[in-house]
Amino acid sequence: MTNSLPRALTELIEAFGSLPGVGARTAERYAYAMLKKSASDARKLAAALETLHGRIKLCPKTFALIDSDQEVSPLYSNPARNRQLVAIVEEPFDVLALENTGQFKGTYHVLGGAISPIDGVGPEQLHIPELVQRLKDDKVHEVILATNASVEGESTALYIQKQLEEAMLKSLKITRLARGLPIGVDLEYADQITLSHALNGRREL
Amino acid sequence: MTNSLPRALTELIEAFGSLPGVGARTAERYAYAMLKKSASDARKLAAALETLHGRIKLCPKTFALIDSDQEVSPLYSNPARNRQLVAIVEEPFDVLALENTGQFKGTYHVLGGAISPIDGVGPEQLHIPELVQRLKDDKVHEVILATNASVEGESTALYIQKQLEEAMLKSLKITRLARGLPIGVDLEYADQITLSHALNGRREL
Repeated sequence: MTNSLPRALTELIEAFGSLPGVGARTAERYAYAMLKKSASDARKLAAALETLHGRIKLCPKTFALIDSDQEVSPLYSNPARNRQLVAIVEEPFDVLALENTGQFKGTYHVLGGAISPIDGVGPEQLHIPELVQRLKDDKVHEVILATNASVEGESTALYIQKQLEEAMLKSLKITRLARGLPIGVDLEYADQITLSHALNGRREL
Repeated sequence: MTNSLPRALTELIEAFGSLPGVGARTAERYAYAMLKKSASDARKLAAALETLHGRIKLCPKTFALIDSDQEVSPLYSNPARNRQLVAIVEEPFDVLALENTGQFKGTYHVLGGAISPIDGVGPEQLHIPELVQRLKDDKVHEVILATNASVEGESTALYIQKQLEEAMLKSLKITRLARGLPIGVDLEYADQITLSHALNGRREL
């Protein structure tokens, strides 16, 4: 194989192979497709990758992904969004999933993961103190625990519920997404109707 | 969606979406995976894409893909390869597929496609004159028609067979891959055992 393909292609196939779920055959297919496209198409993807990390940062309020030249997430600064309603999610892309339902007008708080002893993720690695501070600052009325319907997501929701009860935040309503979510499916991959049902059917704890 | 994701991510998702068989969800997954990796991992893929077209050219003899600093394909210049035996394939990656069988010690000639009136590809767009010239120059004993087992591949093989018969190349044996190939499957995706059978069972026309 080293003899039968140019180095540039071998390197590209190897790099594509690091994407999730991409095996040798798929990586070859991607590499050959890029080669068949124009050099400017390949450079477009290259530029998007090259600048990716430099152009993105975390919002200091919500920990969602924002452009590096923004101060806070537009989903927080937008006056049309209700800051007293906060959906707590695990990962930045969960924000996208909830936004796609078009039904949520509150704001978000991204934890940056879920509690998972197996993966070595403890509560101290999640943005929970910042959440408690924010709930006080913004006089939040309701938090929606919108973690994944997985063991880790459930544990994280339970942990946060306890923390918020201990923090004795007055008149804070704690809700969670309805059991409409099929168990074991990550929020990021749930379809929009299921997510809409889960939003509407959320119940108080 | 424009509001809920940084521009850098939206652009990357769009660029990944141009890969074959990659829909919106898969593109999002790839983009997020790249973001989770280090900036240097992202830059590695970026660099491989950036330099791809500049570092690759076609071998002037075999039309296989080679490094831009190579003169001819090592599969042609290697003295261990039999230049009097030539496998005629449609696409550069078909060379890789045949090489992976480990059974072929001849050289290759890449046509650069197959005759397909629907796609507007006529015989004049394939490297057939160069093939005829090469067969004379190298005093080739046998050509193996190793086009795909598709309608286009069959038509192309038939066309080339006629061209070679008209060129009246003395004592040239024309063979084709055995019918071991399942019909409708592209050479590039055939498994190595099937390809080995097809190589060994080739029959004279």
